[in-house]
Amino acid sequence: MSGHLGQIESPADVRRLSLDELDELAGEMRQALIDSTLATGGHLASNLGFVEATIALHYVFDTPRDRLVFDVSHQCYTHKMLTGRKHAYTNPAYYGKYTGFTNPGESVYDLFRAGHTSQGVSLACGLAKARDVLGEHRNVVVVIGDGSLSGGEAFEGLDNAAVVGTNLIVVFNDNEMSIAPNSGGLYEHFAELRRTKGQCQNNYFRTLGLDYRYVEEGNDVHALVEAFQEVRDIDHPVVVHVHTLKGCGYAWAEQNPEAAHSIPAANAAKPAGETFQEITRLYLREKMAVDSSVVVVNAGAPSGVGLTPEFRAACGNRFVDTGITEQHAVAFSAGLARGGAKPVFMVMATFAQRAFDQFVQELGLNKSPATVLVFGAGFYDIDATHAGTLDIVMTSNVPGITCLAPATAEEYLDMLDWSIDQHERPVVIRVPERVIHAELSGFDPLRPTGWHTVREGSRIAFLSLGSTINLAREAADLLEERDGIHATLVEALNYSSFDEPLLDGLLAFHDIVVTLEAGILCGGFGEKVARYYGKTAMRVFCYGGMKEFLDRVPTEEFFAIYHFTPEDIVSDIEALHL
Amino acid sequence: MSGHLGQIESPADVRRLSLDELDELAGEMRQALIDSTLATGGHLASNLGFVEATIALHYVFDTPRDRLVFDVSHQCYTHKMLTGRKHAYTNPAYYGKYTGFTNPGESVYDLFRAGHTSQGVSLACGLAKARDVLGEHRNVVVVIGDGSLSGGEAFEGLDNAAVVGTNLIVVFNDNEMSIAPNSGGLYEHFAELRRTKGQCQNNYFRTLGLDYRYVEEGNDVHALVEAFQEVRDIDHPVVVHVHTLKGCGYAWAEQNPEAAHSIPAANAAKPAGETFQEITRLYLREKMAVDSSVVVVNAGAPSGVGLTPEFRAACGNRFVDTGITEQHAVAFSAGLARGGAKPVFMVMATFAQRAFDQFVQELGLNKSPATVLVFGAGFYDIDATHAGTLDIVMTSNVPGITCLAPATAEEYLDMLDWSIDQHERPVVIRVPERVIHAELSGFDPLRPTGWHTVREGSRIAFLSLGSTINLAREAADLLEERDGIHATLVEALNYSSFDEPLLDGLLAFHDIVVTLEAGILCGGFGEKVARYYGKTAMRVFCYGGMKEFLDRVPTEEFFAIYHFTPEDIVSDIEALHL
Repeated sequence: MSGHLGQIESPADVRRLSLDELDELAGEMRQALIDSTLATGGHLASNLGFVEATIALHYVFDTPRDRLVFDVSHQCYTHKMLTGRKHAYTNPAYYGKYTGFTNPGESVYDLFRAGHTSQGVSLACGLAKARDVLGEHRNVVVVIGDGSLSGGEAFEGLDNAAVVGTNLIVVFNDNEMSIAPNSGGLYEHFAELRRTKGQCQNNYFRTLGLDYRYVEEGNDVHALVEAFQEVRDIDHPVVVHVHTLKGCGYAWAEQNPEAAHSIPAANAAKPAGETFQEITRLYLREKMAVDSSVVVVNAGAPSGVGLTPEFRAACGNRFVDTGITEQHAVAFSAGLARGGAKPVFMVMATFAQRAFDQFVQELGLNKSPATVLVFGAGFYDIDATHAGTLDIVMTSNVPGITCLAPATAEEYLDMLDWSIDQHERPVVIRVPERVIHAELSGFDPLRPTGWHTVREGSRIAFLSLGSTINLAREAADLLEERDGIHATLVEALNYSSFDEPLLDGLLAFHDIVVTLEAGILCGGFGEKVARYYGKTAMRVFCYGGMKEFLDRVPTEEFFAIYHFTPEDIVSDIEALHL
Repeated sequence: MSGHLGQIESPADVRRLSLDELDELAGEMRQALIDSTLATGGHLASNLGFVEATIALHYVFDTPRDRLVFDVSHQCYTHKMLTGRKHAYTNPAYYGKYTGFTNPGESVYDLFRAGHTSQGVSLACGLAKARDVLGEHRNVVVVIGDGSLSGGEAFEGLDNAAVVGTNLIVVFNDNEMSIAPNSGGLYEHFAELRRTKGQCQNNYFRTLGLDYRYVEEGNDVHALVEAFQEVRDIDHPVVVHVHTLKGCGYAWAEQNPEAAHSIPAANAAKPAGETFQEITRLYLREKMAVDSSVVVVNAGAPSGVGLTPEFRAACGNRFVDTGITEQHAVAFSAGLARGGAKPVFMVMATFAQRAFDQFVQELGLNKSPATVLVFGAGFYDIDATHAGTLDIVMTSNVPGITCLAPATAEEYLDMLDWSIDQHERPVVIRVPERVIHAELSGFDPLRPTGWHTVREGSRIAFLSLGSTINLAREAADLLEERDGIHATLVEALNYSSFDEPLLDGLLAFHDIVVTLEAGILCGGFGEKVARYYGKTAMRVFCYGGMKEFLDRVPTEEFFAIYHFTPEDIVSDIEALHL
């Protein structure tokens, strides 16, 4: 590593450079980011747009004494490179050493683990208030993107910044894009602010009681340094609106900012065969063609749930991207249902957490016949910030919501079709990770909350939730092979209520029930079964995840970590039983 | 019932009156509301301010064909009186027949059950979109108060209204108050809008792409009718800013709008003796006097958690009311903790639901040493909208959060003091309903997640969570009396993890463990115990609430409904055991 970057060990080294050298440093860092991210995968475009601003922030502010918070923190790669972690972006061997977001476990320059959106201003308000109460003197700076500003929590934070009232610098990184194109009335206003160079009379930030500055050249280090120097040590909250170019300096990313937002590693295996995202698109295209009341809703994160630009376009006005607004999206879906439309809200499990109260109030209490498709639920090789293991907790324990867990593509499609056409209740469908097929679907629309017995046996019964069916089958096969026990195998297609006749029936010829779920056990499916049998002699063995945060654990490894392989299960049974 | 009100059976009857008669009707209805609410209790001030606007809305719009949505719906009494339910407000005998909020189960004029805040615009967006997709023609009108506009979801809804783009009428009821005085930069702006009669250049609603009108005389039926007639059948979203007087027409309420927001029934028993709200205030006053880093945080609902105006004033700048912003309040608390302050966030269980993701990300994942005091958790005589039975689900299943359940005031104070002073973890304390005292506190700060054995016995062990201790004690006494069994009695002071040595120890001389919790069983405490013992011969009997919504069930009755009395429990044990 040559050039300036080779000399940078901490922000103090940045502060020793001249302004022109900062330009050169930015060029070097941009190239390193392009090269490394193309190889390793990661958030490309969001980081390329924010290279100069990050350098300017560390140049002007006295980090870590001054506090620097990144909202979402998917734009923190330059920050990581300047704060002792550049080797992760110059040598692929080190890439896996760090998480993809800010992380206080990695560096004193990182204040929070972040990954979900719109929380940064609130966190900064807290830091500013703590500073004031403790009588300290330091700047508090928070970086937030235009996409994140669609989230209600960001509004709440901005509205409260005025109440804190003292030094608080909000750097508004406006790259004219969320993950996908922005949606919401506010974005017309941001365009007007850019057109008028921040001079238009009407100003969102000023309505919230905040001071405001505009920097048109958001990828020019000189302009940024000047702007940040002007607001350093300011005695009240101020928004510095920085107009940047998403993907800046890499032509493909500039022209394809959605695709370039987050890219896979160069050597990443393409998903083999069909996906549930694909199956869902194909189904919805057909359904929407024959039923004009179906409306597809997404909250600012279309890629994970398979809502491609082509599909969105084909839906016309019956696709609504509400922005990063899970709360609104759920309430909006309830309104659609009440108005006679058939909403299908597609959401990642990790982001669904943001709408818990709306699941309770707008869906459960109001019995709104909306369909919610939860993708990314279970054990995935992902940062802990984005884990999707709490969805069972937050949907299946809410009164009034029917939660379905298909094991196969056939069951999934049957459930989806039934759910869209019924008018009685909100339905959550937990979409499995991998597509498997079966000759017969176990879902019976006449008995939509019933479970499906795949095979009848005795002594041991496996109750498999959704995607764990193959694991259950393997365990059952192993048990037969090793111990000659022909076990019962049940798909628990519904995890919001019990198939009581089935559970009661098992009491006659079984003494162990084994539950399997791809989610944390606490508050989950297996525990309910354990309670159901609590007064009986039935033993209940629950397999699932522990209540913990794990970073980037390969999906297959979860099962070993959680003592959740067929071998583990059969050994446990043998230990008790044989 | 004489006058015009006597003739009103539905809004059609309102439309037959002259404008001057509407004035007279308003006077009659205001008096009926004052008389009835003083007797029965309820939301007084919020309703008094909105009498004229409600009459004007039903006069101008063709309800129920036109859609009328109330955000929160604590201002819907006039609406209920006009839509077939006036006897609930003229004859106290009928008061209990209806819920305190809009409810489609009561009337076709009510579109949603609402009770939490800030969801109304989102629901209306959904209704408008459904109308457009289905090719219908009708007005969609939503009423939202200034307090609710501090909530992020309301921002999300307004931002998305512009995207819906068609007829959507947002009636902004600005009575210059939330439950308590408003907090947030936005409220200075609203004051400017009022001062300039809506003419100031800077306009929050216009920044979100919305059209805007201002009505200064928000308690004048004529002005309101004119304003609503102007926007009826409009082809785009518009905000009608109506300046009303909270408590209008009742001098005491006008002068004491916070106290008058919601009042108890005239014959309501005063809470006997001390309350946990009081105990908390006394403790915090002392603590804050010696530790200047303690900051008390509340999210726009101070009364339920005992944050009186006097206490708030005494805290000075170390009390922060963030507005109706639970998401922000939790993230703000995480920021405070990271910055070295000691935040104590006081919240009602039902509203804490709105911050589930922030509990996960900002508290659990970030290990933020913040203290959260959850009031109103358990079985209360309250509308289903405000039930506080899901707090165990949403806090105890989240990794990284320590959840404590004191049974006595002594334990509560020990836990609170320990929590505020520790630096390692977020702590949730589930505040019991009633104060009981004990000579000794079972909480050991050296073993903060341990449980407390109250008495040692054999065969049966009662594991009591928090406030259920007296119930457990009565059941144990009854068991001794009836069956001569001296049972073990344990306070499960911590419900986020197990006291494993204790649980393992019970295996030797017990064959039934009984769990008791004042919350729903699904996803709760007892189920975890059932799973823990799943592989053993221990029987586990779980007592708690069913997964359902119940309206205004007297607290004591819950225990009978849920088969959760000492008699029930002992009979169950006898049925299995003896």
